[in-house]
Amino acid sequence: MPGPLDGIKVIELTAVVLGPWACQMLADMGADVIKIEAPYGDSNRSLGAVRNTPGMSALYLTCNRNKRSLVLDLKKPEGRDALLKLVESADVLIHNNRPQVMDKLKINYEDLKSVNPKLIYCGSYGYGKDGPYGDKGALDDSIQAVSGIAMLNKLVLGEPRYLPTIVCDKTTAMTVVQGVVAALFHRERTGQGQEIEVPMYETMVHYIMAEHLWGYTFDPPIGEPGYTRLMSHHRKPYPTKDGYIAILPYLDAHWETFCKLADREELLEEPRFKTLADRVANIDDTYQETGKTMLMKTTQEWMDIFGKTSVPTIVVNSLEDLVHDEHLNAVGFWQTIDHPTEGKLRTPAFPIKFSESPADIRRHAPVLGEHSVEILKEAGLDDAMIDAMIEGGATKVA
Amino acid sequence: MPGPLDGIKVIELTAVVLGPWACQMLADMGADVIKIEAPYGDSNRSLGAVRNTPGMSALYLTCNRNKRSLVLDLKKPEGRDALLKLVESADVLIHNNRPQVMDKLKINYEDLKSVNPKLIYCGSYGYGKDGPYGDKGALDDSIQAVSGIAMLNKLVLGEPRYLPTIVCDKTTAMTVVQGVVAALFHRERTGQGQEIEVPMYETMVHYIMAEHLWGYTFDPPIGEPGYTRLMSHHRKPYPTKDGYIAILPYLDAHWETFCKLADREELLEEPRFKTLADRVANIDDTYQETGKTMLMKTTQEWMDIFGKTSVPTIVVNSLEDLVHDEHLNAVGFWQTIDHPTEGKLRTPAFPIKFSESPADIRRHAPVLGEHSVEILKEAGLDDAMIDAMIEGGATKVA
Repeated sequence: MPGPLDGIKVIELTAVVLGPWACQMLADMGADVIKIEAPYGDSNRSLGAVRNTPGMSALYLTCNRNKRSLVLDLKKPEGRDALLKLVESADVLIHNNRPQVMDKLKINYEDLKSVNPKLIYCGSYGYGKDGPYGDKGALDDSIQAVSGIAMLNKLVLGEPRYLPTIVCDKTTAMTVVQGVVAALFHRERTGQGQEIEVPMYETMVHYIMAEHLWGYTFDPPIGEPGYTRLMSHHRKPYPTKDGYIAILPYLDAHWETFCKLADREELLEEPRFKTLADRVANIDDTYQETGKTMLMKTTQEWMDIFGKTSVPTIVVNSLEDLVHDEHLNAVGFWQTIDHPTEGKLRTPAFPIKFSESPADIRRHAPVLGEHSVEILKEAGLDDAMIDAMIEGGATKVA
Repeated sequence: MPGPLDGIKVIELTAVVLGPWACQMLADMGADVIKIEAPYGDSNRSLGAVRNTPGMSALYLTCNRNKRSLVLDLKKPEGRDALLKLVESADVLIHNNRPQVMDKLKINYEDLKSVNPKLIYCGSYGYGKDGPYGDKGALDDSIQAVSGIAMLNKLVLGEPRYLPTIVCDKTTAMTVVQGVVAALFHRERTGQGQEIEVPMYETMVHYIMAEHLWGYTFDPPIGEPGYTRLMSHHRKPYPTKDGYIAILPYLDAHWETFCKLADREELLEEPRFKTLADRVANIDDTYQETGKTMLMKTTQEWMDIFGKTSVPTIVVNSLEDLVHDEHLNAVGFWQTIDHPTEGKLRTPAFPIKFSESPADIRRHAPVLGEHSVEILKEAGLDDAMIDAMIEGGATKVA
C-alpha cells in the first residue's frame, strides 16, 4: 500500500533543514521529491560526521531520504529551461529563498504559473514578504530571538538563551507540509493551483502564543502574557538517588496516589496542595516538594512504585538512551538503511501511523547529481541536450 | 474565498492543548469543527486569566476559535447514540484519549467504521498503542523527559530542564493536522477512510533527531549524537550597552561584513575564524568574540549599522514586545475578535498565506454547550429527544 501522497511530484529548491526536512516528510508520505541543488550542493551536506563520501554528512543523510537528486545551475539559461520543463508536470514546488532571489532568477510564482497553472508554489523564509522585515535574511536563532522564545528563557534562567534545538526551522517545516497538503486537497476538489507563503516569524509567534498569550488574550490585557507554570524554577526532571525521573502528579487522583505511595501522606493535609487549583497557585512549592521526595529512592525503585499507576511517570532519556529504548525498538521506530555508498545507517520512522496508506522508506539519501540524467530524460531532454548541459556546467552527474 | 478544508466536518473529542489546537488549525483552514465536551467541559477552560465568564479562560480562548460546542456525556447511552449519529455524516474524528478509554466507551475505530466506513479516525496520545509504553499516561513534560529534550538542556545548563514551552503538545498537534489532511487527500483520490495514530513519543524523537542524530546516523556510530553547536555555552542573544541583539555572521561574506562594520578587522586575520568550517570548529570562541563586540554599542546603534546588510541581525523581543512589533502589525498578524460574552479579544492570524483558499476567523470560541441544540438537530434528533437528553444529563446547553 503506497503512502497518501503517492503519485505527487514535488520539486524541492531548498537547503539546510527547513526545506529539506519538510520535503522529506512529503517524500515519506509517498511523494516523488526531486531535490534540485546548485553544482556546489546543499550546504548541510558538510554539516556533521561523515563516514565515506564528502558531501554525505549526518545532517544531510537525516533530512534527505526518499528523494532523487538533480543538479541545476539556475543562473544558466539551460538550467532554468530544464526547471521549466520539470514544472510542466510537477504538482508542487517548494523553495526557501527570499522572494527577491526568485524574482531575479525569473522563477517566481507568476513565471511558473504561466507554465503550469495547476502548480502549488510554496515559499518559506524569515518574514512575510509584504511586511517591513520582508527582505531580511533569517536563521533559526534569529527567529528564536525575534519571536519571543529566547526571552522566555530569560524568565527561567536570568538571561535570554536559544533552545538547544532548531525549533523554528522544524516547526516551520511542519507548517510547510500542512500548507502544501491542504493546497493539494483543495486542488483535488477545485482544480485550482495556488501560491502559499509560510513565513518563519509569523509561524513561530502563532506557535509560541498558543499557550503564552495568556493575559494578553484580552484587549486591554488583564495581566501579563506568559503561561507562568512553564517558567517555574523547579519545573524539571527530579534527581533521584542515582539519576533522574519525570513524575507529574497533576490531577487530584494523581496527587493522592503520589502522596500515599511515596509515604508523604502529610502533604495531603497541606492547604497549599489540596486541589489542582491550589497546587497550580503554589506550583513552585508543589514541584519543590515532589523534588525533595524523589531524592529518597533510586530511579528504578520509583519506576517500580509508580510505573504501573496512573501518575505519569517516565525515565529521563539522553540522546544515546533513545537508540536502546525498549518501546522504540518494540514498535520498529529505528529503521536500518543499507546505503550504497555510506553503508549501514540508522533512521527514525515517520511518526504517523496510517492504516491504509502507510509512510515508508523507499530510497536512500542521494549523492549529489545521482539522478540528474534520469530526471532530465523524464522531462523530455535528449542525450545531446543533456551532454551539452553537463559540458556547460548547467548540470552535473554523480 | 473559503479555506482549503471548506465542507469538511471534524468531530473533536479532545482537551487541553494538543487536540484543541490541532482542531483549531483545521478549523482555521475552513473545516466545520464540532467540539464535543463532557458536561464539566475541557479542563483548559479554567487555565489562565478569565475576564467575564468562568470556563472562558485565556488558554481556552486561544485554542478554540472557529468551533462549535456540543456537550455529550458519552457514558450515557443517549450521549453515545448522538455521537454515532454525528459520525454518520462526519469526515474526521480526532481524540486524545488513551486507546483503552475509547475501547471502554465502545467508540474505537472498529465501532465507528461500521457506522461510517469513510471516516478518518485519528488518535493522539503519549505512546504508540502497540508498544510496551502503550498504556501509560503522558503530559507534555513527560514526553520532554523521555524523548531526550530535557537532557539536551543538561548539556547546556548542567541539569536536565524542560523547555519553557509545551513543545511536545504543539508539535504533535501539527503532526495530527499533517496526518489528517494527508488522509483526506488520500480519501479524495481513493474513497478510502482509515485509522491514524499519532503518538507523542515517536513524534518527538523523530522531531528531535532531525538534527541531533548526528554521529548515531551511522551504524556503528562514528561519534556522539547531538548537534554540538546548539549546545554551545555562548550561543545566545548578545547583551549590548542597553539591551540585547541577535546577530549571526554565519557565512564567510557575513563574517567579513561583520568584522569590517564592527571595527574588528583584526578578527579577519585570526586562523580560528578564517572560513565557515574554521568558525564552526571554534564555535564557542566565535560566539564569544561576537558577544564581546556587541557590548560596545547600543541595540539601536547596531541595528542602524547591520539592519540593512545581509548579516542576519534582529531585535530580541519579549512576549509583550510582540503585540507592538511593526512587522506583525503591518502584515495584519494580530486580529481582533468581538466576543459576544468575553468582549474584545486579541488572536494571532493563521500563519500560512494561501492565495486562493485563505484561512480565516469566522467564529468565536464557544461557551460550553453553545451549539448543543443546533448540532443535535442537524444530526436528525427531534425536539423531544433533545429535551430528554437535557433532562437526563446526556447533553447541556449554554
